[in-house]
Amino acid sequence: MTWIDIPEGSPFGPENLPLGVFRFGDEEPRIGAAIGDHLIDLAPVASAQMLDGSQLFAEPTLNAFLALGRPAWHATREWLLDLVRNENDRDTVEPHLIPLSAVTMQLPFEVADYVDFYASEQHATNLGRLFRPDSEPLLPNWKHLPVGYHGRAGTVVASGTDIFRPAGQRKPPGADVPAYGPSERLDIEVELGFVVGTPSALGRPVSVGAFEEHVYGVVLVNDWSARDLQAWEYVPLGPFLGKSFATSISPWVVSLEALRGAAVPLPPQDPPVLPYLAGANLVNYDITFEVFWNGQLVSSPPYKDMYWSPAQMLAHLSVNGASVRTGDLFASGTVSGAEQDQRGSFIELTWGGREPLLVNGEERTFLADGDEITISGWATTADGSRIGLGEVTGRITPN
Amino acid sequence: MTWIDIPEGSPFGPENLPLGVFRFGDEEPRIGAAIGDHLIDLAPVASAQMLDGSQLFAEPTLNAFLALGRPAWHATREWLLDLVRNENDRDTVEPHLIPLSAVTMQLPFEVADYVDFYASEQHATNLGRLFRPDSEPLLPNWKHLPVGYHGRAGTVVASGTDIFRPAGQRKPPGADVPAYGPSERLDIEVELGFVVGTPSALGRPVSVGAFEEHVYGVVLVNDWSARDLQAWEYVPLGPFLGKSFATSISPWVVSLEALRGAAVPLPPQDPPVLPYLAGANLVNYDITFEVFWNGQLVSSPPYKDMYWSPAQMLAHLSVNGASVRTGDLFASGTVSGAEQDQRGSFIELTWGGREPLLVNGEERTFLADGDEITISGWATTADGSRIGLGEVTGRITPN
Repeated sequence: MTWIDIPEGSPFGPENLPLGVFRFGDEEPRIGAAIGDHLIDLAPVASAQMLDGSQLFAEPTLNAFLALGRPAWHATREWLLDLVRNENDRDTVEPHLIPLSAVTMQLPFEVADYVDFYASEQHATNLGRLFRPDSEPLLPNWKHLPVGYHGRAGTVVASGTDIFRPAGQRKPPGADVPAYGPSERLDIEVELGFVVGTPSALGRPVSVGAFEEHVYGVVLVNDWSARDLQAWEYVPLGPFLGKSFATSISPWVVSLEALRGAAVPLPPQDPPVLPYLAGANLVNYDITFEVFWNGQLVSSPPYKDMYWSPAQMLAHLSVNGASVRTGDLFASGTVSGAEQDQRGSFIELTWGGREPLLVNGEERTFLADGDEITISGWATTADGSRIGLGEVTGRITPN
Repeated sequence: MTWIDIPEGSPFGPENLPLGVFRFGDEEPRIGAAIGDHLIDLAPVASAQMLDGSQLFAEPTLNAFLALGRPAWHATREWLLDLVRNENDRDTVEPHLIPLSAVTMQLPFEVADYVDFYASEQHATNLGRLFRPDSEPLLPNWKHLPVGYHGRAGTVVASGTDIFRPAGQRKPPGADVPAYGPSERLDIEVELGFVVGTPSALGRPVSVGAFEEHVYGVVLVNDWSARDLQAWEYVPLGPFLGKSFATSISPWVVSLEALRGAAVPLPPQDPPVLPYLAGANLVNYDITFEVFWNGQLVSSPPYKDMYWSPAQMLAHLSVNGASVRTGDLFASGTVSGAEQDQRGSFIELTWGGREPLLVNGEERTFLADGDEITISGWATTADGSRIGLGEVTGRITPN
C-alpha cells in the first residue's frame, strides 16, 4: 500500500504515520511523519504542494498543528496517506525522506498541564496492598471516579534524556526521623499518555462524547517514581517530589485515527458510574507494552483491561469546569495486568523489593545508576495488523 | 519623593512600582508600572529613553522580562525609581501616565507550573482537625518538609474573572454512594504567590540561598476550593477537582526588592530542619491580608507567622532535581493566624460550616452564587511604611 520500502516488523507502517519533531544536523527542529525507517520532512513537501498552513510543519513543536482541531487533523492524515500510497507523489516526497538514524527526536509538543490518572484496577490494588497493608487496597472512591492528580509539566522530557537520580527526604523503616539522600527505590511507571489539541472554555465541561474533538493522539509515558520519597511525602496532598523530577515521553504522537482499528470495548464497570461518566461507546485500546531493563524483557503490560476509559478521564478532569489547553497531557496511570509479568512498575514486579527479578543474571529490585529502561508499545487492530507507538527510553545518571 | 500625585492610602507608593499587564481601549495589552492612581505605560517611555530591551514592555505578558534575571530586574527598578523621583523625567513620563480606572488588568504572566504549599501551621492544624477529627491534626511529615502539590496552571485566572461554581462528585454525610451536583461547600484560600523568573537546569537543585536569584516577586492568590469535592476525592493522590476549576491572582507583581524592608525573621523551627532546608537568613514577610465578603471585612490573616519560608519552599520543590521555569508560580498555602478572625478560609472561619459568620446581617458559611470576594494585602516595612499588593477579586457565577 505504499511505494516506500518498509522493513518487516517496523512499528511505523503506512497506516500509522505518527508525527514528531526532529533535529537534523544544524537545521532548525521541525515536524516529520514516521514511516518505516524514515521520516518525511513535512514542511518542504507541504510547501511544494502548496498546502494551506504548510508553515506549521516548520514549527519546533506540534502545538500549532494540535490547535487546528479534528477536521484539520483528519485532512492532514488523508494527505499523508495519499503521499505514501500515491506513486505520483514519489518525486515530490522522496528527496525529503530522512533516515530515522540520521535525526535526533525532540519533545514533540510543549506540555501545558500534565495530569496523571490511576486507572488500572490491578495497579491500584497492588499499590494499596503495598502502601497500606492494613486496609482495603482499593479506597472507597476508586470505582466511582478516575482518581488523578496534577504532575509537573516542566519536567516532562524527551525520550533519551538522562534521568538524574533524585535526592530528597525519605524515612528509613524503623527510623524516627527522615534522612536526606539519593532515592534508594527508583522505579518506573508504564503509562499511555493522551495529547489534547483542541482547547475548551473555562466553565464548560468536556463530555465523554467529545473526547475525539479534543484529543489528537497518544504517546508512551514512563512516569519515573522515587518510591521512598513518595511514601514519606504523599499524605495528605499526594505525590510531589516522588514524581516531579522527570517524566519521559515517546517522540512519536500516534493519532487516534490510526488507533481506531485497535479500539476495544471497556470492561464492565460495577458499580455503575454517574451519568457524566457514562457513554454508549466508551473504548479502550488493545495496546501491549514491553518493558526492557538493560535490554532484557521484564514485563508486558496490556492496556485493554484498564478500568477507566480515556474519555472518562477527560470528562472527569473537566467536570468542575476546568478548561483544557492545547498541549495538555493526561496519562492513564501505571498499566498493570493480572499476571505477574504484566505489572507496570518494579515495586509491583518485585512486590515492594522483596521478590527480586533476575536481570541479565543478577537479582534486581529498583534502578541502579547506569540502568537503561526502554518501553515499547504496539496496538493490535481487529484485523491483526499492528500500529507501533515506538519507544521511550532513559538511563539513570547519578546526581 | 515623587513628582507624581499619590492619593493618601494608595497601595502603590513611589517605592513599590509593581509591574502588571494592562489593556487600554482597543490597544494591544502591554506592561505598566503602578503608581498611585495611575500606571506608567512603560514601552513608550523606555523607547523614548532608548532603554535596552524596551520592546519587552510591549509584550502581552511579563514572561520575557522575568526571564532576564536579577541584575536586569534590579536595573529596571533603579530606572523606575529614577523616573518617578526625577523632575527632569516628568516631560517624558507624564504623557504616558494612564489612570488605573481607564484600563483593564490582565493575567500578568503566563503560568508555567503551579505548585501550592501548605506552610501555615495554624491552617494545617485546623484542616487536620476538620478533615481527620480522629487523628493527630499535624501529620508526621509536616514539620520536616514543606508539604505541597501541583495545581492546574491553565486555570490560574486574572483578578476579576468570574468563578463558575464547580460541579462534580461529593458524598453527602451518611450516604453510601456519591452524588453529582454543584459544590455546596465553595470556599476561598488566602495565599501569597511567588513568581519565578530565572529558570534552573534539570538535575540542579536551587539552594535556599539562591531564592532571590530565581524569584522576581509576589502576587496575591485566592485558591478557590470546593471542600465537598475535595473531601471525597483527595485520598490517596491529593486534591484535584476540588481546586482545579480556578485560582485567581492579583494583577500587580510586587518585586522582592520592594518588599525587602518588610522582611522579618522566620519563627523558630523545631525539630531542626535537614541541611538542605537550613539557612542563616531565612525570612518571612510582614504582610497582612484583608478578606472582604460582599464588601464586609471578615478576616485579616497575617503572613509573618508562616512556618516555612518561601526560600525553603523553592529549595524543597527542586531538591529532587526538578527544574523551574520562567512563569512558575508557587503559593504559600492558606495563611491562617492564631486568632479566630485571622483564618484564611471559610471552612476554618466557620469551623466546617458549624459556626456561621454574620455577613451584612445574614448567617453565612460557604459561598453563594453572586457572592464577591476581594482579598487585599499590605506589607509593612520596619520603618512603618506600607507597600501594597493591591487586591484580587472574583464573583461566584452559577454553572
